[in-house]
Amino acid sequence: MNTQSILTSKRDGQALSKEEIRYWIAGVTQRSIPDYQTAAWLMAVTLRGMSPAEMLDLTLAMRDSGERLDLSHLSGGISLDKHSTGGVGDKTTLVVVPMLASLGVSVLKMSGRGLGYSGGTVDKLEAIPGFRTDLAPQEAIAQVEKIGAALISQTARLAPADGILYALRDVTATVESIPLIASSIMCKKLAAGASRIVLDVKVGRGAFMKTLDEGRRLANALVAIGSSAGVPTSALLTSMDEPLGFAVGNALEVSEAIEVLQNRADIDTRFRNLCVDLVAHSLLVTGKATDTQEGRVKAENSLVSGSAARKFEEIVRAQGGPGSLRATEESLPMAAAIDEVRATTSGTVTGIDAEAIGRLAVAMGAGRISKSDTIDPSVGILLKAKTASVIRRGDSLASLHSRVSDASRRTEYADALRQAYRIEVVSTLPKRLPSLILESVG
Amino acid sequence: MNTQSILTSKRDGQALSKEEIRYWIAGVTQRSIPDYQTAAWLMAVTLRGMSPAEMLDLTLAMRDSGERLDLSHLSGGISLDKHSTGGVGDKTTLVVVPMLASLGVSVLKMSGRGLGYSGGTVDKLEAIPGFRTDLAPQEAIAQVEKIGAALISQTARLAPADGILYALRDVTATVESIPLIASSIMCKKLAAGASRIVLDVKVGRGAFMKTLDEGRRLANALVAIGSSAGVPTSALLTSMDEPLGFAVGNALEVSEAIEVLQNRADIDTRFRNLCVDLVAHSLLVTGKATDTQEGRVKAENSLVSGSAARKFEEIVRAQGGPGSLRATEESLPMAAAIDEVRATTSGTVTGIDAEAIGRLAVAMGAGRISKSDTIDPSVGILLKAKTASVIRRGDSLASLHSRVSDASRRTEYADALRQAYRIEVVSTLPKRLPSLILESVG
Repeated sequence: MNTQSILTSKRDGQALSKEEIRYWIAGVTQRSIPDYQTAAWLMAVTLRGMSPAEMLDLTLAMRDSGERLDLSHLSGGISLDKHSTGGVGDKTTLVVVPMLASLGVSVLKMSGRGLGYSGGTVDKLEAIPGFRTDLAPQEAIAQVEKIGAALISQTARLAPADGILYALRDVTATVESIPLIASSIMCKKLAAGASRIVLDVKVGRGAFMKTLDEGRRLANALVAIGSSAGVPTSALLTSMDEPLGFAVGNALEVSEAIEVLQNRADIDTRFRNLCVDLVAHSLLVTGKATDTQEGRVKAENSLVSGSAARKFEEIVRAQGGPGSLRATEESLPMAAAIDEVRATTSGTVTGIDAEAIGRLAVAMGAGRISKSDTIDPSVGILLKAKTASVIRRGDSLASLHSRVSDASRRTEYADALRQAYRIEVVSTLPKRLPSLILESVG
Repeated sequence: MNTQSILTSKRDGQALSKEEIRYWIAGVTQRSIPDYQTAAWLMAVTLRGMSPAEMLDLTLAMRDSGERLDLSHLSGGISLDKHSTGGVGDKTTLVVVPMLASLGVSVLKMSGRGLGYSGGTVDKLEAIPGFRTDLAPQEAIAQVEKIGAALISQTARLAPADGILYALRDVTATVESIPLIASSIMCKKLAAGASRIVLDVKVGRGAFMKTLDEGRRLANALVAIGSSAGVPTSALLTSMDEPLGFAVGNALEVSEAIEVLQNRADIDTRFRNLCVDLVAHSLLVTGKATDTQEGRVKAENSLVSGSAARKFEEIVRAQGGPGSLRATEESLPMAAAIDEVRATTSGTVTGIDAEAIGRLAVAMGAGRISKSDTIDPSVGILLKAKTASVIRRGDSLASLHSRVSDASRRTEYADALRQAYRIEVVSTLPKRLPSLILESVG
């Protein structure tokens, strides 16, 4: 067994054995296989694909490339992890994790930072003054034992092979590969020790998977890996054509998450219902509900009763943030300049390009183009009109929360915002919008 | 245009534009594109292939990555280059180049060193004491002007992109790709300035191309590139199942080449006929013969008349070797030990595994496994029986020319030699063997 024979096998479309895959991942982790060979291997995997058995072996080899957390003593051995493939305005974790913890489901949730047009949960949490995302794993586990949840940043000690492979994939056009995406997601989830996994696979213009078919293939691969690894896993395919909710930008998204947790009236009900559905599926997979209908009732109740909001307050306090929800809301940084962007035409919003909105938020300073960029948590976009909104010329489409130093650019931002909106005169009144949930898998 | 978009296009099976290919090869040559990206690109090219237009663009970009020789003032603008894809016992260049020069065809022939089981012409020439293969291009051109031919080693200043790419292909399982093989061969030929090219594409167990179909695809690609680049090119597909001629090993092969040039009686006629056919095709492509029949007559005459032998003598003398053919033969290094390997069974030789013979010669010290290995020019194998030979138990199959220090291993070598021979009792007498020429292209 050597690098050349493994490369040749994959090049020729043969399935690699468990031993061959473990040999390669060990070589990647120990840096004994040079990057150029791994780059060729990644391209061969991208073009030749992998069988379900290979995907499982790859995931487990990557899981075992570093530390693994043991959560088996939590809540009778059951703890849940939730993962979203990422999108624009995706603050779901901030809502779903407290809901679950308030319903007795333990969640040790590790998140990443944003890169490109897709935001990262860690950046959002760090918009809260004092909030520590860098808890050591043992500290986080102790917090989960005490209050049921912790929201922390990924540690490089878990599945280090994934970090090395991802950096190479990023520069070799091998990001778009179902086996590589699926193993990258699942190795970290499995190394983090959860016994149940719920996945939110985003599909659409603002997501990595552009079509339902692609999303379905990824969801099936993820669920198959989890189940084969002995961790019951289910996935929801959810729509990401327009941004999720109203807010895009770190402090704005925290604020919106708090509003949803408080069950306020003026929230985006499609986003709220997505959170309820994710919680319902999580209750099902952890055995806390017998069907999704029962799960939904419990999820709704956690919002209506205020228990989810109190749990969020508790998590924020435990991790160094303000002592109350109100104090948290008031502590969030505010942008120096807020500009309303008004419609220049009347009609119905028939679409909002989520990717364009995400890129605009990055350009404004809410995200990163390269890893070393610094972000401004106060910056972002608050959408006032969403798909199916009927608007008149002069109505506000959105407010842009900008840095004053960007004064000269604010007009450009407003133009970009308008271009992301498709406003048409439609003959029929807009129908009630369908749920963001497209399908469930597993 | 950037590396990522070019990688993505090729990954997705799209044809690259001339500009994209030139951008990539410039990046390879200037070392501005990292090896890992080029490795991924090579794997994408290997798996997705290239159109004829892409192959031409790649070849020309590589041709232009370094110096180019100008041979336009030689012999009314016509000079020929000859290339073999390599095999075991392939000393054709040593015979064909003097034959051509003696017939008025100018040849500036650059050759490489051997690696793996396939030998290299430069190693063979260097078995001649004093022979200089490192002539500077201008010195070689002057020699061609004066005596019609020069036999020198490839310079790294011609098509340097090819050297960089080849080193990467060698370690990324991307050697076996028709577009990459064809462009690698043709870029060096075109940079070396010849106005006509004749290619000897070896097919069979001892060749890189194992099947006639593969060989045909490579030959077609090579001829298409040459013709599109304005250099009339023709290719012969020739058999490389058993070793070419009797001798495998550097000094032994020089000796065999001299015997063929001297038109001696006890030579391998199939090898001799291959040389005659290659010269005939070369005369056709340079306009020195109107058909291959006329070419063959002229080629035969160059051997029978002794003019080819005299030309070889002249080349050797010009490049620092002994002053006569006889002196050259006597100066060749002799192995310390010569062992006859005798048949342990009677029958007819129905096959000799050329690759096994090549690997045995390398193991004995006649070739290199890695580039830094040193070779012993005296070492090699002299076949006594070839395919269709009828032999009795005790007859010599071959003699092994070894180093004395290898005494303990000489029995192993003899066993390996016997294993390369297939000897069977056949009911019919062996037919006359077919020509080594399988097909001609272009």
